[in-house]
Amino acid sequence: MSAKRNRKEKDKLTEKNGLSRKTPTPNTVTNINTIPGWFANKSDEFPGEADLFKAEKVLFAGKSSYQDFLVFENTTYGKIVVLDDELQLSEKDEWAYQEMLTHLPLCSIPNPKKLLLIGGGDGGILREASRHPSLDQIDICELDKMLVDTYATFFPDIAIGYKDPRVKLHLGDGVAFLKSVPQGTYDVVILDAFHVMGPDAKEVVDEGFLESVANALRPGGVLCAPAESFWHPEFELESIIDTCRKIFKGSVNYAWSSVPTYQSGIVGYMLCSTEGPTLPVDFMHPINPLDENINSGISNQPLKFYNSEMHTAAFILPTFVLKYKTPSNFANCFELST
Amino acid sequence: MSAKRNRKEKDKLTEKNGLSRKTPTPNTVTNINTIPGWFANKSDEFPGEADLFKAEKVLFAGKSSYQDFLVFENTTYGKIVVLDDELQLSEKDEWAYQEMLTHLPLCSIPNPKKLLLIGGGDGGILREASRHPSLDQIDICELDKMLVDTYATFFPDIAIGYKDPRVKLHLGDGVAFLKSVPQGTYDVVILDAFHVMGPDAKEVVDEGFLESVANALRPGGVLCAPAESFWHPEFELESIIDTCRKIFKGSVNYAWSSVPTYQSGIVGYMLCSTEGPTLPVDFMHPINPLDENINSGISNQPLKFYNSEMHTAAFILPTFVLKYKTPSNFANCFELST
Repeated sequence: MSAKRNRKEKDKLTEKNGLSRKTPTPNTVTNINTIPGWFANKSDEFPGEADLFKAEKVLFAGKSSYQDFLVFENTTYGKIVVLDDELQLSEKDEWAYQEMLTHLPLCSIPNPKKLLLIGGGDGGILREASRHPSLDQIDICELDKMLVDTYATFFPDIAIGYKDPRVKLHLGDGVAFLKSVPQGTYDVVILDAFHVMGPDAKEVVDEGFLESVANALRPGGVLCAPAESFWHPEFELESIIDTCRKIFKGSVNYAWSSVPTYQSGIVGYMLCSTEGPTLPVDFMHPINPLDENINSGISNQPLKFYNSEMHTAAFILPTFVLKYKTPSNFANCFELST
Repeated sequence: MSAKRNRKEKDKLTEKNGLSRKTPTPNTVTNINTIPGWFANKSDEFPGEADLFKAEKVLFAGKSSYQDFLVFENTTYGKIVVLDDELQLSEKDEWAYQEMLTHLPLCSIPNPKKLLLIGGGDGGILREASRHPSLDQIDICELDKMLVDTYATFFPDIAIGYKDPRVKLHLGDGVAFLKSVPQGTYDVVILDAFHVMGPDAKEVVDEGFLESVANALRPGGVLCAPAESFWHPEFELESIIDTCRKIFKGSVNYAWSSVPTYQSGIVGYMLCSTEGPTLPVDFMHPINPLDENINSGISNQPLKFYNSEMHTAAFILPTFVLKYKTPSNFANCFELST
């Protein structure tokens, strides 16, 4: 789970991947990092706000070639992972994000066979993908071996995803991996690294990153990537959708779900399909539903957050977000269920 | 808006209202109130977590007979109101809560005529009620005159609700007011004071408070009250619903919406209808929809959060919440839209 990687860490990855970035906004938050025993989760996106979590017990603090690690116990949220000073996940709500990021795309097309996950080295999305019996290939490309090992040690219920025999781990750079993929290989690509799609989307696009994803997808294949919260002060749905439609040429929709440990309490998801031989993908109505009584996969735990009704509801947007709709261009983007 | 009043303030009101309360849990949060220039929002319900908001400029600090007031400016959320150390609302998201708390009940029954609001002295729910042309009587009972005056001074866009000529303000105790109401007076009662409905619901019920509400409603009338977030560690939907069904005898449903400044990022809503002469109220499907192009009411501002699709989606619950369902007793409580 890497949706909430902060500026510093994103910049490091960006530099490594050869992507350009604008100068980060100066961090206006002061003092709150010095409170003994508390971790402060904050970001430039929400200046003047910080979510503090008490570290009842520090379980691990370490450093890889790519990032700093902190794992601690919290009374309300259980074990919490922090990478480079940004909260990555908590035991209490990781499944709310992982289930939605995984099942929104996989339940939207019939019979998905090949899945590529970029990032997500913790294993939670693999655990969720494991619930889909139609998959015969689950590739994951993760940069940081230490991240994989840390989750294996402290979060066996998340890292269990690697035990699915269909999973193949490729340790290395996601951008390079994507560029090496033969055209039309995957039915589904899930991004759980690099940028959250938001005001930064254009930069990623300029570098051809999303084009690489579209190229790796078969016609009618789908991408799911974390997107900005609609509460983000600079949130502009129309520009993100416009960008994605130009690249993927199929259906493009924004969804969201509640994740309490993330700033603003929600996270967004961009769903994009490439132009296919049949009707455009209808992301709002899952054609490939999960039966929670059957599809437990490798985890042997039932779904905790996702269900087919929640799938559809995730696409329903508040009125202030809908105002970004331009009817002439995006008539089908926000078709609401009735 | 008083959904998030904290233990201390709730205890004061409780004492005043003659309701009993268990001893508050000792507050385990230390140190974080001493950070210069920051306000820490925290509660016993989410131990080990605190949401910090930078006070860029303090606009008002005062004290009434009932509570302490703090109004300050925050970069991300605009003006923020704090009562007795608990965040009450921010300019950036107050409408997400006020619109849902108001329109979920008023849009669920045809032609509502008489509304009673208990608490909500800021005026935001009055502003939203003003969008409903069928109402001919909007009564509000608010305890604290200073609260009304403070919002009038600092939040004219919220306090504007009082300018609707149908509004009549009763300054005084809500419990006493409810007990004085002739049986069957109101089509809709909205609670925005005292307890959020959750683990505490039974205590309120023991004192006959909800019975007073049910008595004040006409047959087929509806109550809407803020309820605990489903992320609350002690959240028990079944017991709340069970309690409400025994008292109101009609439809009982739980809904929720995103409110980023509230802890866990969401707030719940309990919707209850009294037994009526016709079919039970179908809260999930608004029979009395708002036309955002017409129903601007006294505010002359369009709806920002609520729409009919969001109304229905608010009742869709994550799987871990649905597990509280007891099919034999509550078959109709969580009927999901398809």
